[in-house]
Amino acid sequence: MDIIGTDLSQEGNVMTDRNLYIIKIGGNVIDNSENLYKFLKDFTALPGYKILVHGGGKVATQLSETLGIEPNMVDGRRITDIETLRVVTMVYAGLINKNIVAQLQRFGNNAIGLTGADGNFIKAKKRPVKTIDYGFVGDIDENSINPENLNNLISAGFTPVFCAITHDGDGQLLNTNADTIASALAVAMAKVYITTLIYCFEKKGVLKDINDEGSLISDINPEYYEELKIQKIIHSGMLPKLDNAFTAISSGVKAVIIGHSDDLGKLKHNKPFGTLLSKNA
Amino acid sequence: MDIIGTDLSQEGNVMTDRNLYIIKIGGNVIDNSENLYKFLKDFTALPGYKILVHGGGKVATQLSETLGIEPNMVDGRRITDIETLRVVTMVYAGLINKNIVAQLQRFGNNAIGLTGADGNFIKAKKRPVKTIDYGFVGDIDENSINPENLNNLISAGFTPVFCAITHDGDGQLLNTNADTIASALAVAMAKVYITTLIYCFEKKGVLKDINDEGSLISDINPEYYEELKIQKIIHSGMLPKLDNAFTAISSGVKAVIIGHSDDLGKLKHNKPFGTLLSKNA
Repeated sequence: MDIIGTDLSQEGNVMTDRNLYIIKIGGNVIDNSENLYKFLKDFTALPGYKILVHGGGKVATQLSETLGIEPNMVDGRRITDIETLRVVTMVYAGLINKNIVAQLQRFGNNAIGLTGADGNFIKAKKRPVKTIDYGFVGDIDENSINPENLNNLISAGFTPVFCAITHDGDGQLLNTNADTIASALAVAMAKVYITTLIYCFEKKGVLKDINDEGSLISDINPEYYEELKIQKIIHSGMLPKLDNAFTAISSGVKAVIIGHSDDLGKLKHNKPFGTLLSKNA
Repeated sequence: MDIIGTDLSQEGNVMTDRNLYIIKIGGNVIDNSENLYKFLKDFTALPGYKILVHGGGKVATQLSETLGIEPNMVDGRRITDIETLRVVTMVYAGLINKNIVAQLQRFGNNAIGLTGADGNFIKAKKRPVKTIDYGFVGDIDENSINPENLNNLISAGFTPVFCAITHDGDGQLLNTNADTIASALAVAMAKVYITTLIYCFEKKGVLKDINDEGSLISDINPEYYEELKIQKIIHSGMLPKLDNAFTAISSGVKAVIIGHSDDLGKLKHNKPFGTLLSKNA
């Protein structure tokens, strides 16, 4: 399992041994037990090294409401106050993360559930107070990742499952965007593995017409992306996701896939799924 | 860090490299932030391999009350119904476990927070329904531990921090007694490491007079234990703990220490603390 000592000049299958998928799921998978079951089964069946990153879902909001914690909004932005941090730590790192791990173990995947505090894998910086104090929110980039520690864990045979909690290295847990965790992991691990970053969301992929799942764009490279942007074909809500994806690719990530969790199983059979973002040919 | 390949026939310091402390803390440490801070600092300073096991504390009870979950009692025994399991998963595996991990990381200990589901480290059996249905409670013994997986994690440089949640291997999380987790870990890991099991509780150790901390019994071996039992010197509430401790010792654990978390720091300086239980000389 130790890939560090592998001679990369050898046969083609050595490269396969170095494949690492970093897959991010959000509320549309977590909140639907059927979707989640299918996804975790397909995730387990996918060959190669894997890291799962999951967001929150509805449970944290529901628990906050039940506990009478008012959403703390400033200028339309949600603030992570100390009470909200407690709730997300309980729900993300406890309830959701450990139930996902138990399911993966059931399917034979040797999963291990993590925050960024565990193994010091992700050390964030508390977002500085400018006009808004976001509270206990941690910002990260690829330099926040500890690829050596994480590689030790993966090489020891475990599948990391990250929730969207990090720490500041000084004892403080922080709430961190799950999409950003996934892309930071992908870029940082690209130094050691051939990484593919997969964002599962509620659509089949990037669509020409947001109301027509048949209008899927199967491949986008930077050149074509510029064209699509000029022609204003892609829904503006998708642009930040795509910008981040291409930044990851220009930082060493082999490819980014944006698609529906239901289609992940296709990857096992080397069939395309969702929208594949990659370098210009 | 890899201790598996170590030649045990070599010099004395090799044996020190194989020392493993399994330390269990309960509510009196967890519920008091000053006690917890001091304990985690002393835990970090202790040389050798270490595993931390923590119980619950008051927070789970408080959260249950706030959520209006009535304690489900049958014949005076607490039942872990599905709502209670959700609460303990959130509080033990999320809030308490991850805050302990963040603190340990702050002190430079490369901690990683776990349930028994993670890494399939502890696979429990749901307690069979006889006269009472205890609900989602998992029973374990030393055969429930996966020492190979756990040793992989320890050898990779991580310090496991277990909360009192396990799984059944079929996707179900289970509530499990933290004392039992600690002793099962100690016995299972005794095949690979020289294990010392340490129970931190609210007293200085085993006392001749429960109201007099000056009446500490510093050493007990099985012979002396029989004597103390015959003379009814030890408080009856301590007997199950001591019976379990001597069972662990007869199953390969080198020694068991029962004492106060405040005194753990003495161990670093090779000074005795609490009550040391060990084999007959």
